[in-house]
Amino acid sequence: MSAEEILNDLKENVIKRAPGNAVITDVEFEGSEVVIYAKNPELFSNNFIKELAKDFRKRIAIRPDPSVLLEPDIAKERILRIVPDDAEVVNCIFDANTGEVIIESKKPGLVIGKEGSTLEDIKKEIQWAPKPVRAPPIPSDTIKAIRSTMYRERADVKDILRRIGRRIHRDVKLRDDCWIRTSFLGGSREVGRTCLYHQTPESRIMIDCGINVGMDDEKAFPHFDAPEFSIEEIDAVVVTHAHLDHCGFIPGLFRYGYDGPVYCTKPTRDLMTLLQKDYIDIAEKEGKPVPYTSRDVKNAIKHTIPLDYGVTTDIAPAVKLTLHNAGHILGSAIAHCHIGDGLYNVAYTGDIKFEASRLLEPAVCQFPRLETLIMESTYGGYDDVLPERDETEKELLKVISETIAKGGKVILPVFGIGRAQELMLVLEEGYNQGIFNAPVFLDGMIWEATAIHTAYPEYLSKNMRNRIFHEGDNPFLSEVFKKVKDTKDRRNVIGRDEPCIILATSGMLTGGPSVEYFKTLADDEKNAIVFVGYQSEGTLGRKIQKGWKEIPLMGKNGKTRAIKVKLSVHTLEGFSGHCDRKQLIKYLRKLKPIPDKILTIHGEASKCIDLASTAYKLFKKETKAPMNLDSIRLR
Amino acid sequence: MSAEEILNDLKENVIKRAPGNAVITDVEFEGSEVVIYAKNPELFSNNFIKELAKDFRKRIAIRPDPSVLLEPDIAKERILRIVPDDAEVVNCIFDANTGEVIIESKKPGLVIGKEGSTLEDIKKEIQWAPKPVRAPPIPSDTIKAIRSTMYRERADVKDILRRIGRRIHRDVKLRDDCWIRTSFLGGSREVGRTCLYHQTPESRIMIDCGINVGMDDEKAFPHFDAPEFSIEEIDAVVVTHAHLDHCGFIPGLFRYGYDGPVYCTKPTRDLMTLLQKDYIDIAEKEGKPVPYTSRDVKNAIKHTIPLDYGVTTDIAPAVKLTLHNAGHILGSAIAHCHIGDGLYNVAYTGDIKFEASRLLEPAVCQFPRLETLIMESTYGGYDDVLPERDETEKELLKVISETIAKGGKVILPVFGIGRAQELMLVLEEGYNQGIFNAPVFLDGMIWEATAIHTAYPEYLSKNMRNRIFHEGDNPFLSEVFKKVKDTKDRRNVIGRDEPCIILATSGMLTGGPSVEYFKTLADDEKNAIVFVGYQSEGTLGRKIQKGWKEIPLMGKNGKTRAIKVKLSVHTLEGFSGHCDRKQLIKYLRKLKPIPDKILTIHGEASKCIDLASTAYKLFKKETKAPMNLDSIRLR
Repeated sequence: MSAEEILNDLKENVIKRAPGNAVITDVEFEGSEVVIYAKNPELFSNNFIKELAKDFRKRIAIRPDPSVLLEPDIAKERILRIVPDDAEVVNCIFDANTGEVIIESKKPGLVIGKEGSTLEDIKKEIQWAPKPVRAPPIPSDTIKAIRSTMYRERADVKDILRRIGRRIHRDVKLRDDCWIRTSFLGGSREVGRTCLYHQTPESRIMIDCGINVGMDDEKAFPHFDAPEFSIEEIDAVVVTHAHLDHCGFIPGLFRYGYDGPVYCTKPTRDLMTLLQKDYIDIAEKEGKPVPYTSRDVKNAIKHTIPLDYGVTTDIAPAVKLTLHNAGHILGSAIAHCHIGDGLYNVAYTGDIKFEASRLLEPAVCQFPRLETLIMESTYGGYDDVLPERDETEKELLKVISETIAKGGKVILPVFGIGRAQELMLVLEEGYNQGIFNAPVFLDGMIWEATAIHTAYPEYLSKNMRNRIFHEGDNPFLSEVFKKVKDTKDRRNVIGRDEPCIILATSGMLTGGPSVEYFKTLADDEKNAIVFVGYQSEGTLGRKIQKGWKEIPLMGKNGKTRAIKVKLSVHTLEGFSGHCDRKQLIKYLRKLKPIPDKILTIHGEASKCIDLASTAYKLFKKETKAPMNLDSIRLR
Repeated sequence: MSAEEILNDLKENVIKRAPGNAVITDVEFEGSEVVIYAKNPELFSNNFIKELAKDFRKRIAIRPDPSVLLEPDIAKERILRIVPDDAEVVNCIFDANTGEVIIESKKPGLVIGKEGSTLEDIKKEIQWAPKPVRAPPIPSDTIKAIRSTMYRERADVKDILRRIGRRIHRDVKLRDDCWIRTSFLGGSREVGRTCLYHQTPESRIMIDCGINVGMDDEKAFPHFDAPEFSIEEIDAVVVTHAHLDHCGFIPGLFRYGYDGPVYCTKPTRDLMTLLQKDYIDIAEKEGKPVPYTSRDVKNAIKHTIPLDYGVTTDIAPAVKLTLHNAGHILGSAIAHCHIGDGLYNVAYTGDIKFEASRLLEPAVCQFPRLETLIMESTYGGYDDVLPERDETEKELLKVISETIAKGGKVILPVFGIGRAQELMLVLEEGYNQGIFNAPVFLDGMIWEATAIHTAYPEYLSKNMRNRIFHEGDNPFLSEVFKKVKDTKDRRNVIGRDEPCIILATSGMLTGGPSVEYFKTLADDEKNAIVFVGYQSEGTLGRKIQKGWKEIPLMGKNGKTRAIKVKLSVHTLEGFSGHCDRKQLIKYLRKLKPIPDKILTIHGEASKCIDLASTAYKLFKKETKAPMNLDSIRLR
């Protein structure tokens, strides 16, 4: 049966089984869901939905027909009239495709009302389904822009969802003896340009599509020259998290003809949008070629289907995806694919942290089923035992207080996302405890990334969630943090006489404000630079870390000048968002079930090999550190 | 530069450097050669050719312009007039595409004449280049048909060669850091449907394309569903030898759109044509589907570029092929690919025998360079030590003489090619020595295959070559051998009261006369069946070997009837054309140079794994028994 025939069959059934007075206006595939539109959606019981879902083995949603929805402007007016002023409604966000309205307010309890009475009043009045949430304390331009794109282009987005739905629901069955394999298109035995390509006889799933920002040639991108790769054949793209080495090329896929879905968590969608735009900006400023434009970024957003942790979705015929918390950065996920009907399960960890951080819960290590685990190996080498977190925090605060005592400035080059927010929490505590008394300047995208963090409290650790929910105690709002808004601000920071701390992107000094600060502050031995994240081979960060005393850098006039490195250089690895070797081994020990095969990627060659060898000793199962362009049969 | 531009450049150069009075009519790529056509080819010295070849790094050939060649009929008349009658010229075979005429005679010495004087006379008279050879003692219909196809379709063949030439000579350079990998599309951890697929960023080389005759579903064919496989992209196909598990699908490639070259030795071309036609015949008779027709077989012949052992040829941009003797069957080869300019070397053994047999020299084990060896593992298991050849021969003769003494018949199911001829040599000796006195009937393609053996004495062992050159001592012409010409003959053999020996194809009783003999002779305990070759899982041969006492077989009326197995069943593994485990290890020990990587295929899973493990212990190099659909990065 074609998707069309399946849909017709479903339509007939829905009409036959619906309550007599229901007015059904449409039944459609939208992404992995079957959506029933009705003029009176309230007539459909949960039981009706459940039974239909069971019989057709598909996810079913009931939505109001657009014709019964009030105009957003009028609906907003009604909401504000119904909700008491004390609730302090900040924003109403209408999603025409789901018929939902998100009501952001300072006191969402008042939007809900006693036993949900206010919500019910709203729904009756406007027909939109109201979703009350707490208004994030820091507004995010990125989220605003994404919402506006999704609203403005809602018709297009609906078309995309329907097209994707038809592709997912084409009637294909995997034979019990079918093959499944994975090609490693990038990020194997290296860090950067991560890209996996799962293949079955019927489907192609790409997981991550990163770039190596430290490379200028085609080694920056995954192996699109792999003979098995064909952009037209991809059924679905999954993004584990927002760092560019995992998602940097996603908009490029759209530029080169992909028009299917991208699955990731909502925070990943927002953070990767932010990073991709930043990547374009920096590259343009530096006159480097960028493989896509902001138009492609927008296109990627429109094709993104956000998934919460733990929700299982069809992403291709006979392939189901579940994302699980990876503990690495906000929204980071382990991608678990269930292939065939109980046939095979393969999970890719993405980047994982297997210890509670200030921001996040540790990575999930238990799965319903698991035959192959593909895991990261960034710190998988025999010697890669990182210092304890507590010690590292103390050391950072020591470097800071000593530098400040000398009257110097501390540069902390950070990934805008993840490490920056972790460090902010450490600095805020240190400042409150009186360990140092100097402002912390946030430059680059850090402020904006922090705003996105506050918009998704449900993705943060329990501890943080509680703090953020009570605005008075939101550490990100501390007076110690100062936003660097523009280059004038930046010049002021550089020129000021007083000591200070500067958190600036990019984390490996591959561009952006951190390079600017380094250029002007490197020459003074009072200053300090502290690396708190992994520095890829080839990056400026790695060179400084290695102890280069003079570094040739391109000036604004296009001439190269040598930067003398006199400032003190520190590396604190204990802040890593990755598991160190101890944690990786602990992760393997706690892993349930034990898979038949373990493949190690995302690390220098020796580290991937060390980890594969350790995993073999642990389980006596097949383990391997594949190379880029290896394609490994899983079953 | 495009191939066209390179060719124009070459043309200009040839014209500039040619002797003043030379009349050059054309310069063309034909396959891997650059062919210069001239009205007076005798003016071009060997030195001229050598220097041109050196400067352009291409193989150069000079040929007479077709207009100066005498009409074949007239030329033949002139040849017969010039050559003395004592030479007994049997056949003149004109190859219009090379301007050569093969003169088959009983005494080629007389065609050559004193110091080549007769040859020179012929050349002057007819312009064709005469190639005197000894007339084969048994005429082969296959060779005749192939020659006739090549002559009749010479214009088409020339077009094909030119098209292939342009593809080979497109100007592509492999970067020094380019990747090279091999996909295993069939015949890994199994026997049957062997198919390798070498890939570089610029080219795709398929080595072997076999079928598993024991399978009825898509497991009979290689994994054409592999995502990296695309029939349009194949640059070249190489066939290691003529058995169907290595070449059975070659005509199918042409049916499904391939139109590039097939490289193999001449005996392989002829033998595989014979086997493919036989395969079609048997399948048609049995009402089984065949994936191609005799038209496709003919098309494959036209696209075949024969190579002698040791000759290195460009087969794709930056890929050179050399075939080496594999010792397995007539014309069998090891395929050695040299990729890039000194970049990488990968050899695939095909099936090998590393001991001198009655027919052939042992396999080549030394190569100029070698980074990866892909080797067969048919008898690679820890227990796969086969009996000595001498012992096995004695045992065979014992079974025969005992069966004959009882008045029974002996069925020897054999591959028509290789084992059959080896056995004929053993039987001829046994008969001569008086060990048995009964006729040996040859049914199926054995007679024809033997004819092809006698046509290529240069591919046989030194010993055999000498015997065949002296017709009086040609063992294949012994009176003990009787050809079974048709079904009437066959009925007579089955019905005769006297004992006899029957050599019949197919070797695994997957069809053909061996099955017919088995059906009628199985029920009598006086008779015997002797398996002398590998029986694949799933074949009738394997079932009998396993000791099944009753076997359901489809009768002519379409009804299944049970065949009672009463005849005595023997298995003599010592005749194998494969290395046993001892020989495989000996081959590895003698191998030069020692490669960086050894991949074991073509054997049941456990045997491939055992051999890979042994190779690892031997060399401490990377070894692996890949699975079908694994794709392994070589560099």
